Amino acid sequence: MTKERLYLYDTTLRDGQQTQGVQFSTAEKIQITQVLDQLGIDHIEGGWPGANPTDSEFFDSAPKTSATLTAFGMTKRAGRSAENDDVLAAVMNAGTESVCLVGKTHDFHVTNALGISLDENIDNIQASIHHISSQGREAIFDAEHFFDGYKANPGYALDCIDAAHVVGARWVVLCDTNGGTLPHEISQITRDVIADGILGSDLGIHTHNDTENAIANTLAAIDAGVRHVQGTLNGLGERCGNANLTTLIPLLLLKEPYASQFETGVTLDALQGLTRASRLLDDILNRVPQKQSAFVGASAFAHKAGLHASAIVKDPATYEHVDPALVGNSRIIPMSNQAGQSNLRRRLSEAGLDVAKNDPALPRILDRIKEREAVGYSYDTAQASFELIAREELGMLPQFFEVKRYKVTVERRKNKYNQMVSLSEAVVVVKVGDQKMLSVSESMDETGSDRGPVNALAKALAKDLGPYQQMIDDMRLVDFKVRITDGGTEAVTRVIIDSKDSAGQQWSTVGVSPNIVDASFEALLDAIKWKLVRDSAG
Amino acid sequence: MTKERLYLYDTTLRDGQQTQGVQFSTAEKIQITQVLDQLGIDHIEGGWPGANPTDSEFFDSAPKTSATLTAFGMTKRAGRSAENDDVLAAVMNAGTESVCLVGKTHDFHVTNALGISLDENIDNIQASIHHISSQGREAIFDAEHFFDGYKANPGYALDCIDAAHVVGARWVVLCDTNGGTLPHEISQITRDVIADGILGSDLGIHTHNDTENAIANTLAAIDAGVRHVQGTLNGLGERCGNANLTTLIPLLLLKEPYASQFETGVTLDALQGLTRASRLLDDILNRVPQKQSAFVGASAFAHKAGLHASAIVKDPATYEHVDPALVGNSRIIPMSNQAGQSNLRRRLSEAGLDVAKNDPALPRILDRIKEREAVGYSYDTAQASFELIAREELGMLPQFFEVKRYKVTVERRKNKYNQMVSLSEAVVVVKVGDQKMLSVSESMDETGSDRGPVNALAKALAKDLGPYQQMIDDMRLVDFKVRITDGGTEAVTRVIIDSKDSAGQQWSTVGVSPNIVDASFEALLDAIKWKLVRDSAG
Repeated sequence: MTKERLYLYDTTLRDGQQTQGVQFSTAEKIQITQVLDQLGIDHIEGGWPGANPTDSEFFDSAPKTSATLTAFGMTKRAGRSAENDDVLAAVMNAGTESVCLVGKTHDFHVTNALGISLDENIDNIQASIHHISSQGREAIFDAEHFFDGYKANPGYALDCIDAAHVVGARWVVLCDTNGGTLPHEISQITRDVIADGILGSDLGIHTHNDTENAIANTLAAIDAGVRHVQGTLNGLGERCGNANLTTLIPLLLLKEPYASQFETGVTLDALQGLTRASRLLDDILNRVPQKQSAFVGASAFAHKAGLHASAIVKDPATYEHVDPALVGNSRIIPMSNQAGQSNLRRRLSEAGLDVAKNDPALPRILDRIKEREAVGYSYDTAQASFELIAREELGMLPQFFEVKRYKVTVERRKNKYNQMVSLSEAVVVVKVGDQKMLSVSESMDETGSDRGPVNALAKALAKDLGPYQQMIDDMRLVDFKVRITDGGTEAVTRVIIDSKDSAGQQWSTVGVSPNIVDASFEALLDAIKWKLVRDSAG
Repeated sequence: MTKERLYLYDTTLRDGQQTQGVQFSTAEKIQITQVLDQLGIDHIEGGWPGANPTDSEFFDSAPKTSATLTAFGMTKRAGRSAENDDVLAAVMNAGTESVCLVGKTHDFHVTNALGISLDENIDNIQASIHHISSQGREAIFDAEHFFDGYKANPGYALDCIDAAHVVGARWVVLCDTNGGTLPHEISQITRDVIADGILGSDLGIHTHNDTENAIANTLAAIDAGVRHVQGTLNGLGERCGNANLTTLIPLLLLKEPYASQFETGVTLDALQGLTRASRLLDDILNRVPQKQSAFVGASAFAHKAGLHASAIVKDPATYEHVDPALVGNSRIIPMSNQAGQSNLRRRLSEAGLDVAKNDPALPRILDRIKEREAVGYSYDTAQASFELIAREELGMLPQFFEVKRYKVTVERRKNKYNQMVSLSEAVVVVKVGDQKMLSVSESMDETGSDRGPVNALAKALAKDLGPYQQMIDDMRLVDFKVRITDGGTEAVTRVIIDSKDSAGQQWSTVGVSPNIVDASFEALLDAIKWKLVRDSAG
């Protein structure tokens, strides 16, 4: 059976940029475009040229893509021709093969927000779409507030989209702009539109997640016949976000009836890059990835319940709806108060530590983890610190060195040019074997900028570890997360440090203390110890 | 028309605790129970007594509630009677009016995970449920993997739930345990179950969010006839979480056809406490609330797009599907590169600064915000720091004091008892008017614990501000968030500090520097300045 083609349209760079706190640079837009293109997205909407300087810059320097790059804008304003509307001209001048224009279809918005007549609005839509299609370019019409408009005045809403369709809009996209429409309404209204005469193969859907139904609404529209789907990576977008392509793509490729019915531009091979694509976007946004995200979240295949964890060991299908490898994700059995010894042994074996079922170290390790969790530590992500505790209880952790003391100074004052400058200085005293090493470092980097006390401390600590020095030379700190948390009765600081080395290994360690420098120091120490263990020193 | 009753069942304390990184203390469980009870939830599942020490402790010290407190457990094991199963006995001994037991209904799990015969499993279900109902207690049967089980072997899945139903299960809850079922399947299978003879008024639904369809699946089951709904606050739960009650409740109360058709235990008055309830749970979990959450997220009613923002000013209904006040949330017009001067004026007026449309300070403020955002600052949440910049450009920021220099020392060494201890010391030099004040503080608190360098610095800074001292005496730091972010080409540290005073005011400030202590100091300084401005000093 031949599969029907379903088209994916990404709006991460436009509607995604409406997310609170998100502002892409041109370089980031180019990077995201390449990620989307590798996935196999059909259309990539690059932004609104003319409305935003970085959007214009992006179109000027856009990379070559298999995907159709699309410029976004709005229908012309009343009282001038399409040719003479400077806002529309800026959009057209981006020179993209495809142009998407948003226009009103809800009578209330036409009269109240725009303040023009209902006929003028229809004229604006028609003239603008005709302006695109008459140049032989692909015209896409985003029918703003279509579902709310249809509920208020179905005849007018249909007239608006018909006006775009008859002058050659390749796609008429039904938008649930305010995100309040529910699946049964999407289903019924989309069927009404098709019954009125526009084929599903000319219709698109654009949903928002204001009732957590963006995905279900998209599926409802596809079920009704729509064949063009808009969404964003990681569900970015205005307010609660758009339909999440990171969820929608695996759902369409892996779940029935969609997997058998449709073909998209995304192959099963490309699908394995989905988790990486999602994490890369979070990296660019400097966001902590949401653990609970469907398919790509770190918790999506994490089995915490003791009963689940033991069944998973027998057969992963018992508690997994799809194989995590299909989307490039992986299974996790986290440690926690709920985890029994079977979880623990599994997590140890992932770290290369095979421990017998009745090893007396197992309950000791569990106890220590619980004690430390009670004072604010967290080992869900800090796998390297967890490993060090386990190794210590198993008698498998050599004492590489001992820290005798340290001292850090942070100073801010005027320099000789009367500018305020800051500088940190750290002294660390370490004993390796019988030898005492006293190292000092300051926080100034090559460019003369102050990198702060944790940097100075890390440099001093890593400056002279005698015989181990060579093994830690390629380590670098990639992320540093700090939270105030409750350890017992007092607020304490939890620091999680992510480190990396030249072989591409990445590991996380944790430190807890009311003193942020001390918590950082503890996590740094663990990071170095783990690296020494892994590179089999000692 | 009389509305039909729909029952809400919360499992935050049980399935919610399966979230990676979540472990409630007994005190926290009590606090959450009170929040749920105030909302008007019908059943509160408190945990699994016997399986987890804090769960047992919670039932021993459970608060009085209007909601029906429910203990969770599993059906008895094969080879012993319900009376002689110690796991079941521990659940029964919690003495709750209602008991919920999970049992297998998918043949594959019976034979592969449990390793018993299909008949033995049915016997286990029936004997266990009868054990509860025969004592006059309410029995609830969670039919694990029901939808997957029905797809594999419909006859057996139905036999399992019938077995529970005939011996008096008040509710038979259809569980999509692995979260892979889609709305159209939930709809069809639920209708099949009802056609097979169990009334919708005896059926419940329990969904997971593995395809982002937990809400849509719940609605599909309600549409099919189910009248008992399980979920968690903020969508906590195993893997990707359970159906999010924080979304489901406003949806059922505010959106049609549900609002007209159903009555729940939650009143419209209680609904206004929903955002607070959601944030309180995040506070307990020490999580940063998810901005994009439906209804209760900080971004749920944030209008960043310039076009949206200007329409919202005319009429909020243009871009909002419900009034944010109904759920205790509020509208936000954030600052950003996309925001024009109308957004800016609106945000200023929220801060009590009414600025004329053509004030030449407006473009200067926008420029400064953009410049600072480019080097790593973020003003989406740090409203107080934003205000200070605006006031400076408007000539409305008195110079209360000037910081001349500071120095902080962090030391860790052995004390006289041979224990490793740490101590920080800060010296701050401030000029107020003509007077130079030199203040020193150490990080030791009343109990002799080290509270770290930022604490020492904050204390020294707030120690002697001369005439302003009294106004800042009631300030305290409530949260402290640190992220490594990219400012230009170099990684820098962004610190956001939340402060509070005795009048209940809470404000956020931001500092950016490669040096974490310096970034903290900048945010502390802003926090103090804002407090002085607000309490109209100067």
